[in-house]
Amino acid sequence: MQYEDRVDALVAPKGSLEMLSQDEIFRLSEESGPLHDLFHRCSLAILNCGSDSDDPQAVMEEFKDFEIRIVQQERGVKLQLKNAPGSAFVDGKMISSVREMLFSVLRDIIFTQHEILARGLENASSDKLTNVVFELLRNANVFRRIQNPDMIVCWGGHSIARHEYDYTKRVGHELGLRELNICTGCGPGAMKGPMKGAAIAHAKQRMKNGVYLGLTEPGIIAAESPNPIVNQLVIMPDIEKRLEAFVRVGHGIVVFPGGAGTAEEILYILGILLHPKNAGVPFPLVFSGPKESAEYFEQIHAFIGEVLGSEAQNKYRIIIEDEVEVARAMKQGMEEVRQYRKAHQDAFYYNWKLHIPEEFQYPFEPTHEKVRELNLHFNQETHLLAADLRRAFSSIVAGNVKAQGVAYIKEFGPFEIHGDKALLAKLDALLQAFVRQQRMKLPGSAYVPCYKVITD
Amino acid sequence: MQYEDRVDALVAPKGSLEMLSQDEIFRLSEESGPLHDLFHRCSLAILNCGSDSDDPQAVMEEFKDFEIRIVQQERGVKLQLKNAPGSAFVDGKMISSVREMLFSVLRDIIFTQHEILARGLENASSDKLTNVVFELLRNANVFRRIQNPDMIVCWGGHSIARHEYDYTKRVGHELGLRELNICTGCGPGAMKGPMKGAAIAHAKQRMKNGVYLGLTEPGIIAAESPNPIVNQLVIMPDIEKRLEAFVRVGHGIVVFPGGAGTAEEILYILGILLHPKNAGVPFPLVFSGPKESAEYFEQIHAFIGEVLGSEAQNKYRIIIEDEVEVARAMKQGMEEVRQYRKAHQDAFYYNWKLHIPEEFQYPFEPTHEKVRELNLHFNQETHLLAADLRRAFSSIVAGNVKAQGVAYIKEFGPFEIHGDKALLAKLDALLQAFVRQQRMKLPGSAYVPCYKVITD
Amino acid sequence: MQYEDRVDALVAPKGSLEMLSQDEIFRLSEESGPLHDLFHRCSLAILNCGSDSDDPQAVMEEFKDFEIRIVQQERGVKLQLKNAPGSAFVDGKMISSVREMLFSVLRDIIFTQHEILARGLENASSDKLTNVVFELLRNANVFRRIQNPDMIVCWGGHSIARHEYDYTKRVGHELGLRELNICTGCGPGAMKGPMKGAAIAHAKQRMKNGVYLGLTEPGIIAAESPNPIVNQLVIMPDIEKRLEAFVRVGHGIVVFPGGAGTAEEILYILGILLHPKNAGVPFPLVFSGPKESAEYFEQIHAFIGEVLGSEAQNKYRIIIEDEVEVARAMKQGMEEVRQYRKAHQDAFYYNWKLHIPEEFQYPFEPTHEKVRELNLHFNQETHLLAADLRRAFSSIVAGNVKAQGVAYIKEFGPFEIHGDKALLAKLDALLQAFVRQQRMKLPGSAYVPCYKVITD
Amino acid sequence: MQYEDRVDALVAPKGSLEMLSQDEIFRLSEESGPLHDLFHRCSLAILNCGSDSDDPQAVMEEFKDFEIRIVQQERGVKLQLKNAPGSAFVDGKMISSVREMLFSVLRDIIFTQHEILARGLENASSDKLTNVVFELLRNANVFRRIQNPDMIVCWGGHSIARHEYDYTKRVGHELGLRELNICTGCGPGAMKGPMKGAAIAHAKQRMKNGVYLGLTEPGIIAAESPNPIVNQLVIMPDIEKRLEAFVRVGHGIVVFPGGAGTAEEILYILGILLHPKNAGVPFPLVFSGPKESAEYFEQIHAFIGEVLGSEAQNKYRIIIEDEVEVARAMKQGMEEVRQYRKAHQDAFYYNWKLHIPEEFQYPFEPTHEKVRELNLHFNQETHLLAADLRRAFSSIVAGNVKAQGVAYIKEFGPFEIHGDKALLAKLDALLQAFVRQQRMKLPGSAYVPCYKVITD
Repeated sequence: MQYEDRVDALVAPKGSLEMLSQDEIFRLSEESGPLHDLFHRCSLAILNCGSDSDDPQAVMEEFKDFEIRIVQQERGVKLQLKNAPGSAFVDGKMISSVREMLFSVLRDIIFTQHEILARGLENASSDKLTNVVFELLRNANVFRRIQNPDMIVCWGGHSIARHEYDYTKRVGHELGLRELNICTGCGPGAMKGPMKGAAIAHAKQRMKNGVYLGLTEPGIIAAESPNPIVNQLVIMPDIEKRLEAFVRVGHGIVVFPGGAGTAEEILYILGILLHPKNAGVPFPLVFSGPKESAEYFEQIHAFIGEVLGSEAQNKYRIIIEDEVEVARAMKQGMEEVRQYRKAHQDAFYYNWKLHIPEEFQYPFEPTHEKVRELNLHFNQETHLLAADLRRAFSSIVAGNVKAQGVAYIKEFGPFEIHGDKALLAKLDALLQAFVRQQRMKLPGSAYVPCYKVITD
Repeated sequence: MQYEDRVDALVAPKGSLEMLSQDEIFRLSEESGPLHDLFHRCSLAILNCGSDSDDPQAVMEEFKDFEIRIVQQERGVKLQLKNAPGSAFVDGKMISSVREMLFSVLRDIIFTQHEILARGLENASSDKLTNVVFELLRNANVFRRIQNPDMIVCWGGHSIARHEYDYTKRVGHELGLRELNICTGCGPGAMKGPMKGAAIAHAKQRMKNGVYLGLTEPGIIAAESPNPIVNQLVIMPDIEKRLEAFVRVGHGIVVFPGGAGTAEEILYILGILLHPKNAGVPFPLVFSGPKESAEYFEQIHAFIGEVLGSEAQNKYRIIIEDEVEVARAMKQGMEEVRQYRKAHQDAFYYNWKLHIPEEFQYPFEPTHEKVRELNLHFNQETHLLAADLRRAFSSIVAGNVKAQGVAYIKEFGPFEIHGDKALLAKLDALLQAFVRQQRMKLPGSAYVPCYKVITD
Repeated sequence: MQYEDRVDALVAPKGSLEMLSQDEIFRLSEESGPLHDLFHRCSLAILNCGSDSDDPQAVMEEFKDFEIRIVQQERGVKLQLKNAPGSAFVDGKMISSVREMLFSVLRDIIFTQHEILARGLENASSDKLTNVVFELLRNANVFRRIQNPDMIVCWGGHSIARHEYDYTKRVGHELGLRELNICTGCGPGAMKGPMKGAAIAHAKQRMKNGVYLGLTEPGIIAAESPNPIVNQLVIMPDIEKRLEAFVRVGHGIVVFPGGAGTAEEILYILGILLHPKNAGVPFPLVFSGPKESAEYFEQIHAFIGEVLGSEAQNKYRIIIEDEVEVARAMKQGMEEVRQYRKAHQDAFYYNWKLHIPEEFQYPFEPTHEKVRELNLHFNQETHLLAADLRRAFSSIVAGNVKAQGVAYIKEFGPFEIHGDKALLAKLDALLQAFVRQQRMKLPGSAYVPCYKVITD
Repeated sequence: MQYEDRVDALVAPKGSLEMLSQDEIFRLSEESGPLHDLFHRCSLAILNCGSDSDDPQAVMEEFKDFEIRIVQQERGVKLQLKNAPGSAFVDGKMISSVREMLFSVLRDIIFTQHEILARGLENASSDKLTNVVFELLRNANVFRRIQNPDMIVCWGGHSIARHEYDYTKRVGHELGLRELNICTGCGPGAMKGPMKGAAIAHAKQRMKNGVYLGLTEPGIIAAESPNPIVNQLVIMPDIEKRLEAFVRVGHGIVVFPGGAGTAEEILYILGILLHPKNAGVPFPLVFSGPKESAEYFEQIHAFIGEVLGSEAQNKYRIIIEDEVEVARAMKQGMEEVRQYRKAHQDAFYYNWKLHIPEEFQYPFEPTHEKVRELNLHFNQETHLLAADLRRAFSSIVAGNVKAQGVAYIKEFGPFEIHGDKALLAKLDALLQAFVRQQRMKLPGSAYVPCYKVITD
């Protein structure tokens, strides 16, 4: 028996009360306005939650007759859908989590537009940007009055092997048994497994308020549809604010195996932790995978050692095939974070004390020109090198799965990554390993690299 | 046994999670900035909830050593108080409702500052202002997803006789038994009685989520401290937005006996309902009091008839000494409002369809010059005459109990109200009756009028 | 406008899910069975909550066409009512608290029948009876997992003066502000005032789970209809188990002015506290009233001193016209109770440690013969004298307001109270004072004593 | 890293407030009393939730130093554990679901003892037994006020293949997406899979009150430890009351592949549905498994046809490898049940209308003598044959995994099943298939049959 392909529906919000002003409805309703486009695109990504594709273009193509419209009614706002993907429905009724997420998108687009467009952030200071991230998260009700830090960010690939996925579930289960919550980038693979494991563990612990926080952004959401366990979804305006949200709202990070995106995230957090101002800030960071992935982490570890040095290597711990130990390390780390925040009167719900250098905050839009300009040489401060390496990986993610990036590559060919010969050799080796291990794209077709490494 | 006069305390929010950005804390913390002054003033008014004074100057004087400061802590923001009025505490611990209100003030001041200062509303259109009122109320979580309109606004004097006060309690009790909620201006007298009666009735009906909504503004809060039953408090930025909030968020209005402020409110709602665009909009409006107040309403009724005509008289119903009938009329009115909103797909929680002419929206600051310019003649559209009469009464309220108005009167003598002879004669007679009945100020001293009526 | 006199209705339970077995429905449905009679009688008392009568016979007469029947339906059991008193309804819909109470009666009658009839308690040990009281209260969900003892029993007359009633409200308000809960015998007067005051105070403290516990029994419920603020109602099977419930579930007692019933309660608690086994058990006990009632307490105090001695006088404190002090004394007492229970590992929710002598547990049915046999002489242990004095007052209550007692008096004339001359003289003086002060019956008619004092 | 083997702990109840009388504590505390033994045994089974053994003797042996004791404390009763199995704990803290279940055991043992021992059920009528089952379930808070029947009983083996287990999860997921709840016998295998699938689906549907009801009995609990997802656990006093509970509290049944226990359940429900009095009662019944299990159901289907006839075959539907269709069939069946109950004013929460013949209600204790006496011949009413076939399978379950049955077999050799030759041939063939498919016991050792088939 099959689900239907397409469903028309009129859906009301559930839980969060979305009450829009006539202004807001008007702006989102302009059929061809940029806000309506954005809303249409993100909504489709969410409704397409049952899909296994990471090709946004294909999704747009498949559902090109999909329509979404806001309707004002007595008890609030409703959404009118036409030709929505059937996988978001059960016997014609939308799955509640999908319904919630649609309204989260609405909330975040409206708020972002108010805050960002109204104020203009072009030349904003680092502090200002940190405040903006805070306000976006606050508006999304992400902050909770907690007794103890408890939010574990899980990073890792959307395209991982079955045994790796099972391992992420087991880790999530052990984290959940210790009443820790999960935050991920909210796609499939390592972003879904920990939430699934934690959801079962939270049921065993009778935790009714377990949090499965998904942080995404308009560029990535189409390739990595939020999995339906996510019960808090936030659409950050760009990748840099999404990364800042991860490290300010999370109290610790577990990194699972992954591809270019995961490498980007590793360089982001290491670049920040290497900054002198963050020397004393505790930040539990564990790299972990099943025993079959031991070699993968050896490669990463070696790359970090060679490129960023042993100081960077000291910022994390690698744990192989031991989900209980991962969970205990995180639980123990939470206590250290708690002590530190109390001592410094810093909020539990937002890591104000962490210094994030501007290099990691300003939006980087990967064009061929910008990629060419990246400074990948050893003769600079380590955190600055980390910043540009981060951008290099970010470009590859864009070229792989983001609509804009894919379009650029199609038009102008692969990005050219220039830099120091020794450095690039290591980078190239790592990337080739990712390709071999099918971590760049979901399996199914041969991977055509979106980059070329060009040594000086 | 006596309560202590002054208490020092560190208080945390309860219920609503107030999590401030460092930006916001900084702005409110500047010791002599305008935001800090506003926050200090409103906080004192709330803490002074046990007081019977309507003299803001005296209150400021009495508690001139009161201090309030924001402190960032692990689980959120706290407030540090010094020399706070003892009536807000029980055995050294702040009463929860007072605590909630303090954080409501914080919320509204921050939001207003963001919205108003950031955007500039000087030349805003009528629609824009309506959207601003909406956003302020939404931010204060006033909107609820309800099955049926249920919010009854109760207007009436802060200075009323004991038998009038008891009657407002009885009306509130009957409204509460019918599971209706109460919204008032949140001071003593007719603003407290209905809430008290409804609170007992809601307990009998096992309604745990009864709403006692208080709408105030910085100018009036000091003279009319919110009574502690109020469980939703909103500080609107000015009197006009407060009035707009009343008529857009309320589904019906009961007017009890009162003085100049009540007259202002009556002229406001009649002026709006008389506008041709609102001809078909149902708006349950009842004037009610105990049998001893029958004459009072006869005077008002006659004044309305003579000044605004019988069409205005048709907009309301007068019910004397019959609390059950008042409640039934309102309950019945709710059903009509429901039908209308459904038919017009208008929200239950905000009356978008009601047209409010600009004359009732633009802030009117009563200076001697502005008062002199009021156009109190018959030869104009009725709703415009109502608008200027509303402003005349508003000026008298300011001169009676608002800090700024009292200061003006002290410096420049009484306001001079010019206008048509016949009209002013009626106005003067009404005002003199208010004075005789001690409705202008809380009893205790002889009332010195803050106005002079000067016929052309 | 008037409420309707009689209402027919089909009502479903709300909150507590009453799901009955077919056995139970059958037993309660037998039209003329003793259980159905009991249920009919108690239901009528509850529905008659708006009445001011304390004459059960008159109530039965007035509503002799009232009928109640149990109906099984898909979602549980409903009650079919015919000719129910209109005061239990608002515009044809039953007040929720009344509805809850009806189902409480159902619950208690079914459980009592199961437990009492099934087991037979005729020759039960003291321990057994204490366990039965426990099980009845547990079945009624009276027990709560609390952090601190907080249940204040308020005793006092159903027929008291207005200023006394207002004082009980003020005391209740101060108790409620300290987050203490209230337990009374659930009729009017001193049983209603404290709950009303506490309900408003709990609203101010945002306590949504304030408890207003009413303990009654089939004999008294008709004369003292539960007031609608009561949100937990328990029908104990007889007066002795009701009294035991008061002192085991309450953590402290405030006694307001009252008549014979109040005197019975005072002798009950003093008799128990005077027992040597209870020497070390802390039990906060305060007698309090407005300044006008000072003399009343002087009389009581003198009577206790003369009859039971100064040791008895040391068991309580008298506080006149100081509601804040009463509340502080109770709050302070709660802390002592807490320390004691912790030290002795006794439950917070049930005072297992208090020894109640059998004399206070066995049901005493006041017949002319039994009253004549009371041993009212000084030459016995104090707590035994207290026990028989308690029974003497209990008989007077029965003769005044209980259906069975009133019938006895009508048939056989007044009860004859025999005993020591000096003792009886003091008793008679006290009783005459109660008559003069109109504390025996609700005012309205001349009081005809139901007793004669006959000295040996 | 390993969990600890043994843990000592003092645990408090969570959620359900267990407040025991001193009587009850005393009775459960007598070290060698039968109640304490029962409590000890059931508690161990629950604590041993991480185990994969179905050998109760081995479990008792392994944890022979385990102790459990009731302790009275201020806020209620606690349990003192010594040498409890480590798998019930996470880092020394008991998993909440295990904690809840321990107190469920306590509740049920106390209540059963009160009801069963106190009343004596030896010669109870069929109606009486149905009322007892009702009261046990009511006391366990199983009944809910629901809008629509929604409780799907899932039967099937505790020892099933991986692909069968995965299929039960998929069926549970589809049931959960349709907001249906799950009831099973609460062990591993087919009793765990559907709950796990439903738990994830309920999370997606934001159902916070999903019910995972486990019904067990003292004889089976040791072999089939409740899985920790169970959030309502009831210990019925014997297997017949457990079976009655399944069919009265469930609204439909899905049968997955299983062994003798599953066959017992199939014969139980068919025997009842075949009774003429139940002709019109709708009872959705589906047999389902993955495609690899198609043959298994063909065998069962053939056996039913040959032994009970085609009428019996009409009572169920077989669905292979189509979880969506199973869920839709159940959802559709719920609507039929709803219509029927409404039309007959029968409760949603308890199927009073279903007639259960005494043969299926009276406890059958499988001794060698009783097994020999079973009447397995064709010349009798179909439902009576079903009843004795049910008992035959029940005996085999006892001989396989229940402590008492295993002991009998050890002492006296296999049970001897007598009967009609043709009938027994079919039975034997079925049983041998179960053995071959490893459905009798968890894999690991060779299965030694506990029965012999002896034809007349």
